[in-house]
Amino acid sequence: MVKLVMVRHGESTANALNQYTGWNNVGLTTEGRVQAHYAAKQLQGFEFEHVHTSVLKRAIITAYIIQDDLKLNYVPITKTWRLNERHYGALRGQNKDETRREFGEQQVHLWRRSFYSVPPKLAHPDPNDGPYKYFEPRIMPVAESLFGAYKRIVPYYVDHVANRLLDGKNQLIVAHGSTIRALIKYIEGISDQDIDGVEVANGMPLIYEFDDRLNIISSNRQKK
Amino acid sequence: MVKLVMVRHGESTANALNQYTGWNNVGLTTEGRVQAHYAAKQLQGFEFEHVHTSVLKRAIITAYIIQDDLKLNYVPITKTWRLNERHYGALRGQNKDETRREFGEQQVHLWRRSFYSVPPKLAHPDPNDGPYKYFEPRIMPVAESLFGAYKRIVPYYVDHVANRLLDGKNQLIVAHGSTIRALIKYIEGISDQDIDGVEVANGMPLIYEFDDRLNIISSNRQKK
Repeated sequence: MVKLVMVRHGESTANALNQYTGWNNVGLTTEGRVQAHYAAKQLQGFEFEHVHTSVLKRAIITAYIIQDDLKLNYVPITKTWRLNERHYGALRGQNKDETRREFGEQQVHLWRRSFYSVPPKLAHPDPNDGPYKYFEPRIMPVAESLFGAYKRIVPYYVDHVANRLLDGKNQLIVAHGSTIRALIKYIEGISDQDIDGVEVANGMPLIYEFDDRLNIISSNRQKK
Repeated sequence: MVKLVMVRHGESTANALNQYTGWNNVGLTTEGRVQAHYAAKQLQGFEFEHVHTSVLKRAIITAYIIQDDLKLNYVPITKTWRLNERHYGALRGQNKDETRREFGEQQVHLWRRSFYSVPPKLAHPDPNDGPYKYFEPRIMPVAESLFGAYKRIVPYYVDHVANRLLDGKNQLIVAHGSTIRALIKYIEGISDQDIDGVEVANGMPLIYEFDDRLNIISSNRQKK
Protein backbone atom coordinates (compact mmCIF):
# COMPACT_ATOMS: atom_id res chain seq x y z
CA MET A 1 0.00 0.00 0.00
CA VAL A 2 1.26 3.42 -0.93
CA LYS A 3 -0.09 6.89 -0.22
CA LEU A 4 -0.56 10.00 -2.27
CA VAL A 5 -1.42 13.18 -0.38
CA MET A 6 -2.55 16.33 -2.15
CA VAL A 7 -2.87 19.66 -0.36
CA ARG A 8 -4.25 22.88 -1.77
CA HIS A 9 -2.22 25.89 -0.56
CA GLY A 10 -3.50 27.96 2.36
CA GLU A 11 -5.66 31.02 1.71
CA SER A 12 -3.86 33.54 -0.47
CA THR A 13 -4.16 37.31 -0.41
CA ALA A 14 -6.11 37.02 -3.69
CA ASN A 15 -8.49 34.40 -2.20
CA ALA A 16 -9.14 36.86 0.62
CA LEU A 17 -9.98 39.60 -1.92
CA ASN A 18 -12.23 37.21 -3.92
CA GLN A 19 -10.04 37.63 -7.00
CA TYR A 20 -9.10 35.26 -9.79
CA THR A 21 -5.47 34.39 -9.31
CA GLY A 22 -4.21 31.81 -11.76
CA TRP A 23 -0.53 32.45 -12.31
CA ASN A 24 -0.43 35.71 -10.34
CA ASN A 25 2.24 35.15 -7.73
CA VAL A 26 0.55 36.11 -4.48
CA GLY A 27 1.51 35.16 -0.93
CA LEU A 28 -0.47 33.62 1.92
CA THR A 29 -2.63 35.48 4.41
CA THR A 30 -2.15 34.84 8.13
CA GLU A 31 -5.18 32.55 7.90
CA GLY A 32 -3.47 30.79 4.98
CA ARG A 33 -0.41 30.08 7.12
CA VAL A 34 -2.64 28.73 9.87
CA GLN A 35 -4.27 26.42 7.31
CA ALA A 36 -0.84 25.17 6.20
CA HIS A 37 0.08 24.34 9.81
CA TYR A 38 -3.30 22.66 10.19
CA ALA A 39 -2.60 20.53 7.11
CA ALA A 40 0.70 19.45 8.68
CA LYS A 41 -1.12 18.55 11.88
CA GLN A 42 -3.49 16.28 9.94
CA LEU A 43 -0.45 14.61 8.42
CA GLN A 44 1.47 13.84 11.65
CA GLY A 45 3.36 10.59 11.18
CA PHE A 46 2.99 10.61 7.40
CA GLU A 47 6.32 10.24 5.63
CA PHE A 48 6.88 10.95 1.99
CA GLU A 49 9.80 10.49 -0.33
CA HIS A 50 9.28 13.49 -2.56
CA VAL A 51 7.34 16.75 -2.60
CA HIS A 52 5.91 18.18 -5.82
CA THR A 53 4.74 21.76 -6.09
CA SER A 54 4.19 24.56 -8.57
CA VAL A 55 6.46 27.55 -9.20
CA LEU A 56 3.91 29.80 -7.45
CA LYS A 57 4.88 30.94 -4.01
CA ARG A 58 1.56 30.33 -2.26
CA ALA A 59 2.08 26.60 -2.91
CA ILE A 60 5.82 26.66 -2.21
CA ILE A 61 5.35 28.40 1.14
CA THR A 62 2.61 25.91 2.09
CA ALA A 63 4.87 22.99 1.19
CA TYR A 64 7.68 24.50 3.22
CA ILE A 65 5.48 24.94 6.31
CA ILE A 66 4.28 21.33 6.09
CA GLN A 67 7.81 19.97 5.67
CA ASP A 68 9.12 22.07 8.54
CA ASP A 69 6.30 21.10 10.91
CA LEU A 70 6.78 17.40 10.09
CA LYS A 71 10.57 17.74 10.46
CA LEU A 72 10.90 16.52 6.89
CA ASN A 73 12.74 19.59 5.58
CA TYR A 74 15.33 17.36 3.93
CA VAL A 75 12.85 15.63 1.61
CA PRO A 76 13.55 16.72 -1.98
CA ILE A 77 11.12 19.14 -3.60
CA THR A 78 10.41 19.67 -7.27
CA LYS A 79 8.85 22.97 -8.31
CA THR A 80 7.27 22.79 -11.73
CA TRP A 81 5.08 25.11 -13.83
CA ARG A 82 3.13 21.98 -14.80
CA LEU A 83 1.51 21.98 -11.35
CA ASN A 84 0.65 25.69 -11.55
CA GLU A 85 -2.94 26.78 -11.07
CA ARG A 86 -5.05 26.92 -14.20
CA HIS A 87 -4.09 30.09 -16.10
CA TYR A 88 -7.03 32.45 -15.71
CA GLY A 89 -5.97 34.68 -18.59
CA ALA A 90 -7.17 38.29 -18.51
CA LEU A 91 -9.36 37.49 -15.50
CA ARG A 92 -6.36 37.27 -13.20
CA GLY A 93 -6.43 39.92 -10.51
CA GLN A 94 -10.11 40.64 -11.28
CA ASN A 95 -12.73 40.55 -8.57
CA LYS A 96 -15.13 37.65 -9.11
CA ASP A 97 -18.25 39.72 -8.41
CA GLU A 98 -17.13 42.45 -10.80
CA THR A 99 -16.56 39.98 -13.63
CA ARG A 100 -20.10 38.69 -13.06
CA ARG A 101 -21.43 42.21 -13.47
CA GLU A 102 -19.26 42.84 -16.53
CA PHE A 103 -19.68 39.57 -18.43
CA GLY A 104 -22.87 38.14 -16.92
CA GLU A 105 -23.47 35.34 -14.46
CA GLN A 106 -23.81 32.67 -17.13
CA GLN A 107 -20.57 33.46 -18.97
CA VAL A 108 -18.60 33.56 -15.72
CA HIS A 109 -20.15 30.29 -14.60
CA LEU A 110 -19.01 28.72 -17.89
CA TRP A 111 -15.45 30.06 -17.51
CA ARG A 112 -15.25 28.79 -13.98
CA ARG A 113 -17.03 25.50 -14.29
CA SER A 114 -17.13 24.15 -17.84
CA PHE A 115 -14.28 21.73 -18.49
CA TYR A 116 -13.58 23.20 -21.94
CA SER A 117 -14.34 26.91 -21.59
CA VAL A 118 -11.29 29.18 -22.00
CA PRO A 119 -11.32 32.61 -20.30
CA PRO A 120 -10.27 35.77 -22.19
CA LYS A 121 -6.57 35.64 -23.03
CA LEU A 122 -3.93 37.60 -21.18
CA ALA A 123 -2.67 40.09 -23.79
CA HIS A 124 0.78 40.72 -22.38
CA PRO A 125 2.31 38.06 -20.14
CA ASP A 126 5.42 39.56 -18.58
CA PRO A 127 8.44 37.39 -19.39
CA ASN A 128 10.33 39.03 -16.52
CA ASP A 129 7.72 37.95 -13.99
CA GLY A 130 9.58 35.27 -12.03
CA PRO A 131 7.59 32.12 -12.66
CA TYR A 132 7.18 32.92 -16.37
CA LYS A 133 10.88 33.45 -16.87
CA TYR A 134 11.71 29.97 -18.03
CA PHE A 135 9.27 30.00 -20.96
CA GLU A 136 9.77 30.85 -24.56
CA PRO A 137 7.23 33.64 -25.12
CA ARG A 138 5.60 31.70 -27.97
CA ILE A 139 4.75 28.70 -25.76
CA MET A 140 3.74 30.67 -22.69
CA PRO A 141 0.15 29.95 -21.72
CA VAL A 142 -2.09 33.03 -21.87
CA ALA A 143 -5.36 31.39 -20.77
CA GLU A 144 -6.48 27.85 -20.06
CA SER A 145 -9.66 25.85 -19.73
CA LEU A 146 -9.52 23.17 -17.04
CA PHE A 147 -8.97 20.81 -19.97
CA GLY A 148 -5.94 22.86 -21.04
CA ALA A 149 -4.52 22.67 -17.54
CA TYR A 150 -5.32 18.93 -17.35
CA LYS A 151 -3.27 18.27 -20.49
CA ARG A 152 -0.10 19.72 -18.99
CA ILE A 153 -0.67 18.47 -15.41
CA VAL A 154 -1.31 14.79 -16.11
CA PRO A 155 1.96 14.16 -17.97
CA TYR A 156 3.87 15.42 -14.94
CA TYR A 157 1.85 13.16 -12.65
CA VAL A 158 2.43 10.13 -14.85
CA ASP A 159 6.16 10.69 -15.31
CA HIS A 160 7.17 12.00 -11.88
CA VAL A 161 4.58 10.99 -9.28
CA ALA A 162 2.91 7.75 -10.41
CA ASN A 163 6.26 6.12 -11.14
CA ARG A 164 7.42 6.79 -7.58
CA LEU A 165 4.12 5.51 -6.19
CA LEU A 166 4.62 2.33 -8.21
CA ASP A 167 8.00 2.01 -6.46
CA GLY A 168 6.09 2.01 -3.15
CA LYS A 169 7.13 5.53 -2.15
CA ASN A 170 4.59 7.92 -0.63
CA GLN A 171 4.29 11.25 -2.43
CA LEU A 172 3.10 14.72 -1.42
CA ILE A 173 1.69 17.22 -3.92
CA VAL A 174 1.11 20.78 -2.73
CA ALA A 175 -0.68 22.72 -5.41
CA HIS A 176 -3.82 24.60 -6.41
CA GLY A 177 -7.57 24.16 -6.65
CA SER A 178 -7.72 23.45 -10.38
CA THR A 179 -4.48 21.47 -10.38
CA ILE A 180 -5.85 19.11 -7.77
CA ARG A 181 -9.26 18.93 -9.48
CA ALA A 182 -7.53 17.87 -12.69
CA LEU A 183 -5.61 15.19 -10.79
CA ILE A 184 -8.75 13.95 -9.02
CA LYS A 185 -10.42 13.69 -12.45
CA TYR A 186 -7.51 11.64 -13.75
CA ILE A 187 -7.08 9.42 -10.69
CA GLU A 188 -10.77 8.70 -10.15
CA GLY A 189 -11.81 8.75 -13.80
CA ILE A 190 -14.46 11.44 -13.30
CA SER A 191 -16.39 12.63 -16.36
CA ASP A 192 -16.03 16.08 -17.93
CA GLN A 193 -19.49 16.94 -16.57
CA ASP A 194 -19.09 15.62 -13.05
CA ILE A 195 -15.73 17.27 -12.34
CA ASP A 196 -17.71 20.52 -12.07
CA GLY A 197 -19.03 19.43 -8.68
CA VAL A 198 -15.64 18.61 -7.15
CA GLU A 199 -14.36 21.14 -4.62
CA VAL A 200 -10.95 21.31 -2.97
CA ALA A 201 -10.63 23.27 0.28
CA ASN A 202 -7.49 25.18 1.33
CA GLY A 203 -5.17 23.23 3.62
CA MET A 204 -7.29 20.05 3.85
CA PRO A 205 -5.11 17.05 2.93
CA LEU A 206 -6.69 14.74 0.40
CA ILE A 207 -5.33 11.24 0.98
CA TYR A 208 -5.40 8.32 -1.45
CA GLU A 209 -4.22 4.85 -0.62
CA PHE A 210 -3.34 2.71 -3.63
CA ASP A 211 -2.48 -0.93 -4.13
CA ASP A 212 0.70 -1.85 -5.98
CA ARG A 213 -0.99 -1.31 -9.34
CA LEU A 214 -2.34 2.08 -8.26
CA ASN A 215 -5.93 0.96 -7.88
CA ILE A 216 -7.59 3.11 -5.22
CA ILE A 217 -8.01 1.25 -1.92
CA SER A 218 -9.36 4.21 0.01
CA SER A 219 -9.66 7.95 -0.06
CA ASN A 220 -10.91 10.59 2.36
CA ARG A 221 -12.49 12.66 -0.40
CA GLN A 222 -15.95 13.86 0.59
CA LYS A 223 -18.41 13.21 -2.19
CA LYS A 224 -21.50 15.35 -2.43
CA MET B 1 30.87 37.22 -15.94
CA VAL B 2 29.04 34.84 -13.67
CA LYS B 3 28.52 34.84 -9.91
CA LEU B 4 28.71 32.21 -7.22
CA VAL B 5 27.35 33.17 -3.81
CA MET B 6 27.93 31.02 -0.75
CA VAL B 7 26.12 31.63 2.54
CA ARG B 8 26.70 29.86 5.83
CA HIS B 9 23.41 29.20 7.65
CA GLY B 10 22.30 31.56 10.42
CA GLU B 11 23.22 30.83 14.03
CA SER B 12 21.89 27.42 15.10
CA THR B 13 20.72 26.38 18.55
CA ALA B 14 23.93 24.34 18.80
CA ASN B 15 26.11 27.33 17.83
CA ALA B 16 24.40 29.25 20.62
CA LEU B 17 25.27 26.47 23.09
CA ASN B 18 28.88 26.32 21.82
CA GLN B 19 28.42 22.69 20.78
CA TYR B 20 29.86 20.68 17.94
CA THR B 21 27.04 20.03 15.54
CA GLY B 22 28.15 18.26 12.39
CA TRP B 23 25.21 16.22 11.13
CA ASN B 24 23.00 16.87 14.17
CA ASN B 25 19.84 18.33 12.75
CA VAL B 26 19.30 21.49 14.78
CA GLY B 27 17.20 24.54 13.94
CA LEU B 28 18.01 28.25 13.88
CA THR B 29 17.88 30.62 16.82
CA THR B 30 15.98 33.90 16.50
CA GLU B 31 19.35 35.55 15.90
CA GLY B 32 20.02 32.93 13.21
CA ARG B 33 16.81 33.91 11.40
CA VAL B 34 17.79 37.56 11.61
CA GLN B 35 21.16 36.66 10.05
CA ALA B 36 19.39 34.84 7.20
CA HIS B 37 17.24 37.92 6.49
CA TYR B 38 20.41 40.04 6.67
CA ALA B 39 22.07 37.78 4.10
CA ALA B 40 19.06 38.28 1.80
CA LYS B 41 19.36 42.04 2.25
CA GLN B 42 22.99 41.93 1.16
CA LEU B 43 21.90 40.03 -1.94
CA GLN B 44 19.11 42.40 -3.12
CA GLY B 45 19.02 42.34 -6.91
CA PHE B 46 21.08 39.15 -7.17
CA GLU B 47 19.38 36.51 -9.29
CA PHE B 48 20.40 32.89 -9.39
CA GLU B 49 19.31 29.94 -11.46
CA HIS B 50 19.68 27.21 -8.85
CA VAL B 51 20.06 26.86 -5.09
CA HIS B 52 22.21 24.12 -3.58
CA THR B 53 21.97 23.16 0.07
CA SER B 54 22.54 20.30 2.48
CA VAL B 55 19.93 17.95 3.94
CA LEU B 56 20.31 19.69 7.32
CA LYS B 57 17.49 21.98 8.28
CA ARG B 58 19.55 24.91 9.53
CA ALA B 59 20.82 25.35 5.95
CA ILE B 60 17.46 24.57 4.31
CA ILE B 61 15.63 27.12 6.48
CA THR B 62 18.28 29.75 5.72
CA ALA B 63 17.97 29.07 1.98
CA TYR B 64 14.21 29.31 2.23
CA ILE B 65 14.35 32.69 4.02
CA ILE B 66 16.74 34.09 1.41
CA GLN B 67 14.61 32.87 -1.49
CA ASP B 68 11.44 34.23 0.08
CA ASP B 69 12.93 37.65 0.85
CA LEU B 70 14.30 37.95 -2.70
CA LYS B 71 10.95 36.75 -4.16
CA LEU B 72 12.81 33.89 -5.83
CA ASN B 73 10.84 31.09 -4.18
CA TYR B 74 10.37 29.42 -7.56
CA VAL B 75 14.08 28.86 -8.17
CA PRO B 76 14.82 25.11 -8.00
CA ILE B 77 16.63 23.83 -4.94
CA THR B 78 18.74 20.71 -4.58
CA LYS B 79 19.28 19.31 -1.08
CA THR B 80 22.22 16.96 -0.92
CA TRP B 81 24.12 15.20 1.89
CA ARG B 82 27.29 16.07 -0.05
CA LEU B 83 26.95 19.67 1.14
CA ASN B 84 26.38 18.64 4.77
CA GLU B 85 28.61 20.04 7.47
CA ARG B 86 31.74 18.03 8.21
CA HIS B 87 30.71 15.00 10.29
CA TYR B 88 32.02 15.65 13.79
CA GLY B 89 31.73 12.03 14.89
CA ALA B 90 31.32 11.38 18.61
CA LEU B 91 31.93 15.08 19.30
CA ARG B 92 28.52 16.04 17.96
CA GLY B 93 26.33 17.56 20.64
CA GLN B 94 29.39 18.02 22.93
CA ASN B 95 30.25 21.39 24.41
CA LYS B 96 33.48 22.72 22.94
CA ASP B 97 34.90 23.81 26.31
CA GLU B 98 34.13 20.43 27.88
CA THR B 99 35.90 18.54 25.10
CA ARG B 100 38.94 20.76 25.71
CA ARG B 101 38.93 19.74 29.37
CA GLU B 102 38.40 16.08 28.52
CA PHE B 103 40.83 15.65 25.64
CA GLY B 104 43.20 18.60 26.09
CA GLU B 105 43.53 21.87 24.22
CA GLN B 106 46.05 20.53 21.74
CA GLN B 107 44.04 17.49 20.66
CA VAL B 108 40.89 19.56 20.23
CA HIS B 109 42.79 22.14 18.21
CA LEU B 110 44.00 19.34 15.92
CA TRP B 111 40.51 17.95 15.45
CA ARG B 112 39.14 21.38 14.67
CA ARG B 113 41.92 22.81 12.61
CA SER B 114 44.16 20.19 11.05
CA PHE B 115 43.08 19.35 7.52
CA TYR B 116 43.61 15.61 8.04
CA SER B 117 42.70 14.98 11.68
CA VAL B 118 39.61 12.78 12.17
CA PRO B 119 37.59 13.18 15.39
CA PRO B 120 36.47 10.13 17.42
CA LYS B 121 33.97 8.08 15.45
CA LEU B 122 30.27 8.07 16.16
CA ALA B 123 29.55 4.56 17.41
CA HIS B 124 25.89 4.30 16.49
CA PRO B 125 24.59 6.53 13.74
CA ASP B 126 20.80 6.27 13.75
CA PRO B 127 19.57 5.16 10.33
CA ASN B 128 16.10 6.45 11.22
CA ASP B 129 17.38 9.95 11.83
CA GLY B 130 15.94 11.84 8.85
CA PRO B 131 18.99 13.02 6.96
CA TYR B 132 20.78 9.68 7.41
CA LYS B 133 17.86 7.71 6.07
CA TYR B 134 19.04 7.52 2.48
CA PHE B 135 22.35 5.85 3.29
CA GLU B 136 23.35 2.24 3.33
CA PRO B 137 24.64 1.81 6.90
CA ARG B 138 27.98 0.55 5.63
CA ILE B 139 28.73 3.76 3.69
CA MET B 140 27.37 6.17 6.27
CA PRO B 141 30.05 8.58 7.46
CA VAL B 142 30.78 8.27 11.19
CA ALA B 143 33.47 10.97 11.46
CA GLU B 144 35.34 13.15 8.98
CA SER B 145 38.45 15.25 8.77
CA LEU B 146 38.04 18.41 6.70
CA PHE B 147 39.87 16.39 4.03
CA GLY B 148 37.19 13.68 4.26
CA ALA B 149 34.46 16.28 3.83
CA TYR B 150 36.38 17.94 0.98
CA LYS B 151 36.47 14.66 -0.95
CA ARG B 152 32.69 14.34 -1.00
CA ILE B 153 31.91 18.08 -1.38
CA VAL B 154 34.11 18.89 -4.38
CA PRO B 155 32.60 16.24 -6.71
CA TYR B 156 29.16 17.78 -6.13
CA TYR B 157 30.53 21.24 -6.87
CA VAL B 158 32.21 20.10 -10.06
CA ASP B 159 29.24 18.14 -11.38
CA HIS B 160 26.32 20.34 -10.31
CA VAL B 161 27.54 23.89 -9.65
CA ALA B 162 30.60 24.56 -11.82
CA ASN B 163 28.87 23.21 -14.93
CA ARG B 164 26.01 25.67 -14.46
CA LEU B 165 28.47 28.52 -13.83
CA LEU B 166 30.19 27.60 -17.09
CA ASP B 167 26.78 27.99 -18.76
CA GLY B 168 26.75 31.58 -17.45
CA LYS B 169 24.14 30.94 -14.75
CA ASN B 170 24.57 32.43 -11.27
CA GLN B 171 24.45 29.89 -8.44
CA LEU B 172 23.65 30.10 -4.73
CA ILE B 173 25.04 27.63 -2.18
CA VAL B 174 23.63 27.74 1.35
CA ALA B 175 25.64 25.44 3.56
CA HIS B 176 27.93 25.12 6.56
CA GLY B 177 31.23 26.43 7.92
CA SER B 178 33.36 23.46 6.91
CA THR B 179 31.49 22.89 3.65
CA ILE B 180 32.22 26.43 2.55
CA ARG B 181 35.83 26.28 3.79
CA ALA B 182 36.34 23.17 1.66
CA LEU B 183 34.89 24.97 -1.36
CA ILE B 184 37.02 28.07 -0.74
CA LYS B 185 40.07 25.78 -0.59
CA TYR B 186 39.12 24.22 -3.91
CA ILE B 187 38.13 27.44 -5.67
CA GLU B 188 41.11 29.52 -4.50
CA GLY B 189 43.65 26.69 -4.41
CA ILE B 190 44.54 27.24 -0.76
CA SER B 191 47.10 24.90 0.81
CA ASP B 192 46.30 22.28 3.47
CA GLN B 193 48.10 24.48 6.01
CA ASP B 194 46.60 27.83 5.09
CA ILE B 195 42.97 26.69 5.05
CA ASP B 196 43.25 26.61 8.85
CA GLY B 197 43.12 30.40 8.93
CA VAL B 198 39.96 30.73 6.80
CA GLU B 199 36.81 31.66 8.73
CA VAL B 200 33.23 31.79 7.48
CA ALA B 201 30.72 33.88 9.44
CA ASN B 202 27.03 33.03 9.75
CA GLY B 203 24.80 34.80 7.23
CA MET B 204 27.55 36.82 5.48
CA PRO B 205 27.33 36.17 1.73
CA LEU B 206 30.65 35.28 0.14
CA ILE B 207 30.56 36.41 -3.49
CA TYR B 208 32.82 35.26 -6.31
CA GLU B 209 32.76 36.67 -9.80
CA PHE B 210 34.26 34.40 -12.43
CA ASP B 211 35.16 34.81 -16.08
CA ASP B 212 33.83 32.32 -18.63
CA ARG B 213 36.56 29.82 -17.78
CA LEU B 214 35.87 30.20 -14.04
CA ASN B 215 38.98 32.19 -13.27
CA ILE B 216 38.28 34.43 -10.29
CA ILE B 217 37.73 38.07 -11.31
CA SER B 218 36.82 39.30 -7.86
CA SER B 219 35.71 38.15 -4.44
CA ASN B 220 34.59 39.87 -1.26
CA ARG B 221 36.41 37.39 0.95
CA GLN B 222 38.30 39.15 3.74
CA LYS B 223 41.82 37.82 3.98
CA LYS B 224 43.65 38.08 7.27
